[in-house]
Amino acid sequence: MFFASDNSGPVHPQVLAALGAANDGYAMGYGDDPLTKQVQRRIREIFEAPEAAVYLVATGTAANALALATLCQPFETVFCSPVAHIHEDECNAPEFFTGGAKLTLVPGDDKMTPKALAATIARENTRGVHGPQRGPVSITQVTERGAVYTLDELRALTAVARDHELPCHLDGARFANALVRLSCSAADMSWRAGVDALSFGGTKNGLLGVEAVIFFDPDKAWEFELRRKRGGHLFSKGRYLAAQMAAYLADDLWLSSARSANAACARLAEGLRNAGAEFVHPPDANMIFAALPRAAHRRLHEAGAVYHLWDGTLDGADPDELLTARLVCDWSISNAQIDRFLAVLHG
Amino acid sequence: MFFASDNSGPVHPQVLAALGAANDGYAMGYGDDPLTKQVQRRIREIFEAPEAAVYLVATGTAANALALATLCQPFETVFCSPVAHIHEDECNAPEFFTGGAKLTLVPGDDKMTPKALAATIARENTRGVHGPQRGPVSITQVTERGAVYTLDELRALTAVARDHELPCHLDGARFANALVRLSCSAADMSWRAGVDALSFGGTKNGLLGVEAVIFFDPDKAWEFELRRKRGGHLFSKGRYLAAQMAAYLADDLWLSSARSANAACARLAEGLRNAGAEFVHPPDANMIFAALPRAAHRRLHEAGAVYHLWDGTLDGADPDELLTARLVCDWSISNAQIDRFLAVLHG
Amino acid sequence: MFFASDNSGPVHPQVLAALGAANDGYAMGYGDDPLTKQVQRRIREIFEAPEAAVYLVATGTAANALALATLCQPFETVFCSPVAHIHEDECNAPEFFTGGAKLTLVPGDDKMTPKALAATIARENTRGVHGPQRGPVSITQVTERGAVYTLDELRALTAVARDHELPCHLDGARFANALVRLSCSAADMSWRAGVDALSFGGTKNGLLGVEAVIFFDPDKAWEFELRRKRGGHLFSKGRYLAAQMAAYLADDLWLSSARSANAACARLAEGLRNAGAEFVHPPDANMIFAALPRAAHRRLHEAGAVYHLWDGTLDGADPDELLTARLVCDWSISNAQIDRFLAVLHG
Amino acid sequence: MFFASDNSGPVHPQVLAALGAANDGYAMGYGDDPLTKQVQRRIREIFEAPEAAVYLVATGTAANALALATLCQPFETVFCSPVAHIHEDECNAPEFFTGGAKLTLVPGDDKMTPKALAATIARENTRGVHGPQRGPVSITQVTERGAVYTLDELRALTAVARDHELPCHLDGARFANALVRLSCSAADMSWRAGVDALSFGGTKNGLLGVEAVIFFDPDKAWEFELRRKRGGHLFSKGRYLAAQMAAYLADDLWLSSARSANAACARLAEGLRNAGAEFVHPPDANMIFAALPRAAHRRLHEAGAVYHLWDGTLDGADPDELLTARLVCDWSISNAQIDRFLAVLHG
Repeated sequence: MFFASDNSGPVHPQVLAALGAANDGYAMGYGDDPLTKQVQRRIREIFEAPEAAVYLVATGTAANALALATLCQPFETVFCSPVAHIHEDECNAPEFFTGGAKLTLVPGDDKMTPKALAATIARENTRGVHGPQRGPVSITQVTERGAVYTLDELRALTAVARDHELPCHLDGARFANALVRLSCSAADMSWRAGVDALSFGGTKNGLLGVEAVIFFDPDKAWEFELRRKRGGHLFSKGRYLAAQMAAYLADDLWLSSARSANAACARLAEGLRNAGAEFVHPPDANMIFAALPRAAHRRLHEAGAVYHLWDGTLDGADPDELLTARLVCDWSISNAQIDRFLAVLHG
Repeated sequence: MFFASDNSGPVHPQVLAALGAANDGYAMGYGDDPLTKQVQRRIREIFEAPEAAVYLVATGTAANALALATLCQPFETVFCSPVAHIHEDECNAPEFFTGGAKLTLVPGDDKMTPKALAATIARENTRGVHGPQRGPVSITQVTERGAVYTLDELRALTAVARDHELPCHLDGARFANALVRLSCSAADMSWRAGVDALSFGGTKNGLLGVEAVIFFDPDKAWEFELRRKRGGHLFSKGRYLAAQMAAYLADDLWLSSARSANAACARLAEGLRNAGAEFVHPPDANMIFAALPRAAHRRLHEAGAVYHLWDGTLDGADPDELLTARLVCDWSISNAQIDRFLAVLHG
Repeated sequence: MFFASDNSGPVHPQVLAALGAANDGYAMGYGDDPLTKQVQRRIREIFEAPEAAVYLVATGTAANALALATLCQPFETVFCSPVAHIHEDECNAPEFFTGGAKLTLVPGDDKMTPKALAATIARENTRGVHGPQRGPVSITQVTERGAVYTLDELRALTAVARDHELPCHLDGARFANALVRLSCSAADMSWRAGVDALSFGGTKNGLLGVEAVIFFDPDKAWEFELRRKRGGHLFSKGRYLAAQMAAYLADDLWLSSARSANAACARLAEGLRNAGAEFVHPPDANMIFAALPRAAHRRLHEAGAVYHLWDGTLDGADPDELLTARLVCDWSISNAQIDRFLAVLHG
Repeated sequence: MFFASDNSGPVHPQVLAALGAANDGYAMGYGDDPLTKQVQRRIREIFEAPEAAVYLVATGTAANALALATLCQPFETVFCSPVAHIHEDECNAPEFFTGGAKLTLVPGDDKMTPKALAATIARENTRGVHGPQRGPVSITQVTERGAVYTLDELRALTAVARDHELPCHLDGARFANALVRLSCSAADMSWRAGVDALSFGGTKNGLLGVEAVIFFDPDKAWEFELRRKRGGHLFSKGRYLAAQMAAYLADDLWLSSARSANAACARLAEGLRNAGAEFVHPPDANMIFAALPRAAHRRLHEAGAVYHLWDGTLDGADPDELLTARLVCDWSISNAQIDRFLAVLHG
């Protein structure tokens, strides 16, 4: 009953097997190996983007911060949701990698709306040299609260950015979970929707630790490579990153793993709904924010369920007080675990 | 016949096996897992440093730059060799992570001497607020040219630093190779020799990509954790870094692998010596810089040997011109490969 | 009729005279001159702070950004008002000088309330290593909307900071204007109210361009000096900054100039009130935000009045639409100008 | 007898008078005033560069660091002399403003030679993504040791840079002193000689504190303005910087002041030569490095002469030991002072 995060589960066995297969003899370092080149080609194919520049890094924070640093000058500001990972969960990494750019928060509680984004952009940059200049828009898909932007919603946001000639970054730490939800192509949910640079996540979906950064316009590719190196994010033994990503993309493992996670989440959501839980945010992919009474949380906790409480603690006085649980399903969670969780919940 | 780098060889099978063993069920992320804690304890034991703060990162550049950023203010300067990895091979990572500190090069062609270091430190910081202030001394062991500082040499350098109350960093990307050469304890070659912070390498000695950063005084441990996070170097699935390091330290694998690499290098050096090659630097560990005629390089190249030419190209006019080869032996290189290399060399 | 800013007026003649008086013979550079030392002593006296470290810089942005950089680590966040100068009008200078710290905006439209500050601080720093750590609180006195915090209000804000052991910075670009409003001592409105570091403005109150940065605890004085130098803010001919500040403090010129500005503002406010203008913010010192119909703005504009429109343009369709004017009085504005402005306003 | 620095002397009376003249009524802030625009036009005329972007800042460090930050990416390196002000005397300001670029020192003891520059550039950037990329060349005219590059020497250096498509920055803190020495036009010694960006000094030649930064190609003008603002170097009361620079350029005051300083220096050099002093560097402009016995230094010191000893202290044992004096003449130094100095020297 482990719902703490989709980075807490095991690595997919096919990924481990791929590491073993890659571990044969010698390979040039720093991404100059055949497996890395093959993965780059494969990603360009999947995204129908033959010109794209594709790079592998090991953490989502590295992917986001390096992508933004390449798109954003230090005297500019990034537009994002107040709950964006780049704002709340990266300990100022974007500010660090950009050399001191600002993050301007678009009012709202999770998803950005085109209206709020447009108003925020309009307000920024009206003070000439005194204020920061407008910089990239960063969108998170799946959002930090488990919602998935529709293609129309994505396009509407990037259209606002394009009106101001601002580049768009998509934080796709859970790109696959969103993609299977929308049943569209990777191109549809990225460059065709107006995305210029993508953090294409793998770590939360069964890899040890690999994310791809994709620039659909390769114009700044070399700058990215230099920023990656000076950030300490160029791996000498690149083949072991590439092997993970190759296995991820082979036989649509990335999609089937995401489907498993989303299906598990749907089963869990259904059970929660039946138990009368209230969803704080709509569970569109593999993450649920549900309000449950403290007594239920205590019961689950004692039974060994692991997940984060979002707005309170177990040891409050009132057993009926509603506390929000964040429940995340990864690719490996079993129906048995979910059913046991729901059984405990029902008491 | 692959001598390009000790990061080009395969991962040790025991390390891959450990990844498989770690891949069981769920674990809390971001280093809050039992395997990470076990590895931290084990490193404290090996270094006889029960108070030390121990962290895992995935690249040597990350280890060095984060360690230096923790030891060095942006208005200070780091003292190092002109051929130090931090100066020549990290694309300004130390300048980036420290927020704009300087690197002051101690004259010499590889090893720093206490005399040159003392003179350089004395000259720096004589301009009050106008010049950078004196910051940490960074020593590389094994050096970038394959030499190993004796314990006396290390102590003499750190004594100079201590005279000026400057902290000492050791870039130990090849720590194990130096340690087996000196046949001393890890404590002897680190804190007992005056080292305050150590980049303890694993990647060049059989891991996929793990280095430990060790602060023998844990005073700045929390600052390091924050710098690691904002540098994008905190892995969510920490257990897979820990599993590598645990396997590395189990059964002295790190030492036996280093011994294999050094022994291979000694065999290669002996053969080169017999062939009349001149050593540009003394081959103390697993790296050789040897001058060979262009004709010999061409022969080796055609036979499939892979290594870097340091100061020239194969396609020059003069077949007798001496060009320096950098030859690096990793843990996996076989005697057969070395003997074949030497056979080709002899012609 | 020049109400655009209190940095648009002339320099006080006594200040110019002091420059002439200082222009005699030779003086050591970089602040090592007798006049600088005299000014530092005088500021310590005025603030009843014999231990304080006192430095002169030439711009308010430099004063704020250098003070904050000295108080704030790059992995921390500064708490401030959403309309703070450091957030809106310094083109990311705090982010730049701190090496990438964040600014966290305390909800509100001008003044911070202790309640909002406490709630904001409480919410920050609950994500361990993932989010930025809590850093300094920065308060603006006079606020950017012309309000003056009472001593009780200041103390209540700094008490919140002290509860979390956070340092307090006061952006006192208009310190004198606030001080004469409150009729208290400089110590009362700074360290006795819990302020640790003060940007003590002079430029907006009759100097060419000088602000003092005062650290009431001199612990970080040397670090500040180094940050000032590497920021390019250490003047070689320090005596000409010191001469301005000396003249400013002599014969209470700073206070009498601020009284003139505030009195002019009160006269203007009275006239606006009589004309039925609505104050968007209370005019506590030398700055007014008043709503007037577009027609009135046009009339004033044609008559030569100069000031900023805050939320609209002259060329809108509706003559009755209310637009906010920001009207700032400096020390030099005459009653005649104000009366003429009011006469035009009355039509 | 004040030879400590050309920033220790008084401001020229015409400059002070100009401040008074500018102190009339109101002016828009932040450089949006008529005097600033007039000065920009005048500088474009003098430099025969009608397209140039011209900005005023208050310190030489600001001018240099902002110019370099505009020309240099954080993953690049600046080429300069080992004794360049940007390397030795700015407390890492270039590293700070560029976001962590490196300074690569061209071997030599003062002037750069084209050969050494070419060799240094050739050696840099041969490590692909691992080393810093080649960035701007920064030349100091007058050098830090008092030498003046001839036009041929300047052109030869910038030609090397142009061969690698690198921009050239000229640190002209003593631009006027060099110009009168070479008897050429400002255009000849700047853009016609291959200079892209110039720090055009005024502070060391009679101003309170103003330097112009001139980009002969205005392509990056807006970026510079933003960097200046976020560096805290945009003055609100710009007219008082402009007034200084206007007075400096009026009636060729800048040239006549530089001629006075150089002539004083020549008179001093002649006297020193007659006294048997040895010049450590050729005194081409207004700065002398001369070796004198300790006994002579003591005599001068006791008589009240003020200057810096470069390589020793007065209180050494040996009265005959030669110590280097740095003697700088500013525009105001009188023949009487020089003659008195020489008289004391002769004993």
